[in-house]
Amino acid sequence: MVKAVWIKHASQLVTLAHETVGPRIKEAMSELAIIEDGSVWLENGIIQAIGTTKELEMRYSVQAENADIIDATGHLVTPGLVDPHTHIAYGGSREREFEMRLEGATYMEIMNAGGGIHATTRMTREATEDELVQQTTKRLDSFLTHGVTTVEGKSGYGLDLETELKQLRVMKRLQEEHPIDIIPTFMGAHAVPTEYKGREDEYVDLIINEMLPVVAKEKLAKFNDVFCEVGVFTPEQSKRILDAGKSLGLTPKIHADEIEPYQGAELAAEVGAISAEHLLKASDEGIQAMAKQSVIACLLPATALYLRETAAKGRTMIDAGVPVAISTDCNPGSSPTTSMPLVMNLACISMRLTPAESLCAATYNAACAIQMEDKVGSLEVGKQADVVLWNVKNYQELQYLFGVNHIKTVWKNGVKVVG
Amino acid sequence: MVKAVWIKHASQLVTLAHETVGPRIKEAMSELAIIEDGSVWLENGIIQAIGTTKELEMRYSVQAENADIIDATGHLVTPGLVDPHTHIAYGGSREREFEMRLEGATYMEIMNAGGGIHATTRMTREATEDELVQQTTKRLDSFLTHGVTTVEGKSGYGLDLETELKQLRVMKRLQEEHPIDIIPTFMGAHAVPTEYKGREDEYVDLIINEMLPVVAKEKLAKFNDVFCEVGVFTPEQSKRILDAGKSLGLTPKIHADEIEPYQGAELAAEVGAISAEHLLKASDEGIQAMAKQSVIACLLPATALYLRETAAKGRTMIDAGVPVAISTDCNPGSSPTTSMPLVMNLACISMRLTPAESLCAATYNAACAIQMEDKVGSLEVGKQADVVLWNVKNYQELQYLFGVNHIKTVWKNGVKVVG
Ligand SMILES: [Zn+2]
Ligand SMILES: [Zn+2]
Repeated sequence: MVKAVWIKHASQLVTLAHETVGPRIKEAMSELAIIEDGSVWLENGIIQAIGTTKELEMRYSVQAENADIIDATGHLVTPGLVDPHTHIAYGGSREREFEMRLEGATYMEIMNAGGGIHATTRMTREATEDELVQQTTKRLDSFLTHGVTTVEGKSGYGLDLETELKQLRVMKRLQEEHPIDIIPTFMGAHAVPTEYKGREDEYVDLIINEMLPVVAKEKLAKFNDVFCEVGVFTPEQSKRILDAGKSLGLTPKIHADEIEPYQGAELAAEVGAISAEHLLKASDEGIQAMAKQSVIACLLPATALYLRETAAKGRTMIDAGVPVAISTDCNPGSSPTTSMPLVMNLACISMRLTPAESLCAATYNAACAIQMEDKVGSLEVGKQADVVLWNVKNYQELQYLFGVNHIKTVWKNGVKVVG
Repeated sequence: MVKAVWIKHASQLVTLAHETVGPRIKEAMSELAIIEDGSVWLENGIIQAIGTTKELEMRYSVQAENADIIDATGHLVTPGLVDPHTHIAYGGSREREFEMRLEGATYMEIMNAGGGIHATTRMTREATEDELVQQTTKRLDSFLTHGVTTVEGKSGYGLDLETELKQLRVMKRLQEEHPIDIIPTFMGAHAVPTEYKGREDEYVDLIINEMLPVVAKEKLAKFNDVFCEVGVFTPEQSKRILDAGKSLGLTPKIHADEIEPYQGAELAAEVGAISAEHLLKASDEGIQAMAKQSVIACLLPATALYLRETAAKGRTMIDAGVPVAISTDCNPGSSPTTSMPLVMNLACISMRLTPAESLCAATYNAACAIQMEDKVGSLEVGKQADVVLWNVKNYQELQYLFGVNHIKTVWKNGVKVVG
């Protein structure tokens, strides 16, 4: 029997409670619903009560004897962070490629040495399910130590039926075995495998006719994602894949306008995607279309940093009424990081989000991007008891003292998992 | 009596041992002198032996019974990191100013709300010595958890005799009380205090005639630093201050060419500075001059990131034969971070240093920048037992898996202080 947990006297208890439903836009992104001298009562995996310490003292004076009491005086408390865009279930590691590139190796030299996305595809195909579980567990552990209690995870390093299913099964197994909640996305359309080079439409057919039906039948994914980019999948191919997924009950997501403007944001609005990802080169029309359809912009400033690209126009998007979420994009090529706190910092530094908007983008709006906002992303009675206690006194300091993991304690479903 | 420590079986024991003396340039920055299956024996605060595990097993088979034995299988081991440029001993916190700026406040609005460097000066003047010790201790603790075992620390938020001395005394006290070694730098010439506006030369006289002599007499600093920048101190004023310090035995350092090109790098070479800092806008001639005089470039990529500036040309400088060190620049305005691991990552990402160069810049060359290379910065027999055990398998992974603090254990003078 897990003891109840009473976190009391938080200098700032950021609840993000709000009367409206669905992803938050404009001013609502800054409304953190902060309780000073705040208290939250966790029991049976659920948030049972939340309010000022005084309020909870009246209600829980008797039960307090059997609870773990956490004195959060001087500390910020927030919901567990949500990472709505990761590629965690991959095989191998590419640190030597990172070094080669910095030593001056050309793209072709790296490819010849077995580098790039196809290296990860090869290593993911070669890995057994157990090996992938082991590697992914390490990454999930690191997410947890950075305050992340829910992640989305994509397939897309298999690019054949067997390996795509293997990646999704790894995530399903870890959803059972690991404290973190993993929301799975099928992304067979992450790249065109080398064996289909020049026959891209045949690979699209394979995804539509063979992969998607099995994924849907076995309920291995909730979302269907596609890399719509010059030289990868065209908007037409992307639409075919996303429509096929929709007809099978998979909600569309789309990697859009990352490297070149390609009307990806517009397509996201057209197909009714829950979110569009990256968006570094999204057009003004695309941003307007997303705002109109409430498509969540899932922005990845750590990826932009790692690739030395100018970050997405987060500030502009929020001002235009687009709901914004942020994510690590954790993957072995363009963003090998598990630090959502750094991503929050970069959202302020590189994209000019305010500290409050950045926190909303990493919690409530991130939860909306994976349709989990009824369970996580804010601290409200009845929601999962996913809570973080930070080594800073307020949410401003969390973003200001940058580059540092300020986590002190993490509870997942009411159980202490870090600290 | 502290037990001896035997760290054995490190997958990579990065010693950075090298036959040459003084700061390393060009290829020498990449020569990490790695021992595979490495072992190091720490006793009486000193590195007593270093080699392969096999070698140390022969030598220490008997003594091993009384030692703490650390199995480092699969782990990277390096020297403790050295941060050669910080402003740690300051009062107050400016997170609200960070938020105001992101909410759209103008420079004048922030100044009127009591922001900017003069806010820190005010709060540092108001703080008691004990309060400053307390605040600085928190920052030093954070440095330690990021693997930093030696820091330089500057005064420069007093801008009057009394407070400059207070900052230096705080660092002297912490040198006694805190595990981290603190190497103090006098930086009365960090800004012109508001009360001297329009009378800059009078403030320069105050520094030369009143501050420097006391600092030297009381042996409160080893270095003398000046902010040579348009609108702060001119090259002529800077030279006067640095020459005055030199005649009192204080080695020059110089904040140079950060915001505008101002011949700061050239001046650093001319006055024989041990290091020049920032250098974002350093001229090609200045870089050549620094190379010729072996002036260490102390580069601060976290500051560039925070200010959204293009980082210094680290790659170009190394190729030109300048010895490069890197640092957090920890300060409340332009770089409120304590993470040297992030700075190492940014040196690769933003300045195109290789993973090996970045590690050398954060250890041995950083030690040279504060003239501590005879004691710290590499793992060699007779040096201080400042050692870091990392949660990665090699130095490449340390830089590749970015934004994460991979520290597992830190020993300072042979004593475990983290992990
Ligand atoms: Zn992605
Ligand atoms: Zn500085």
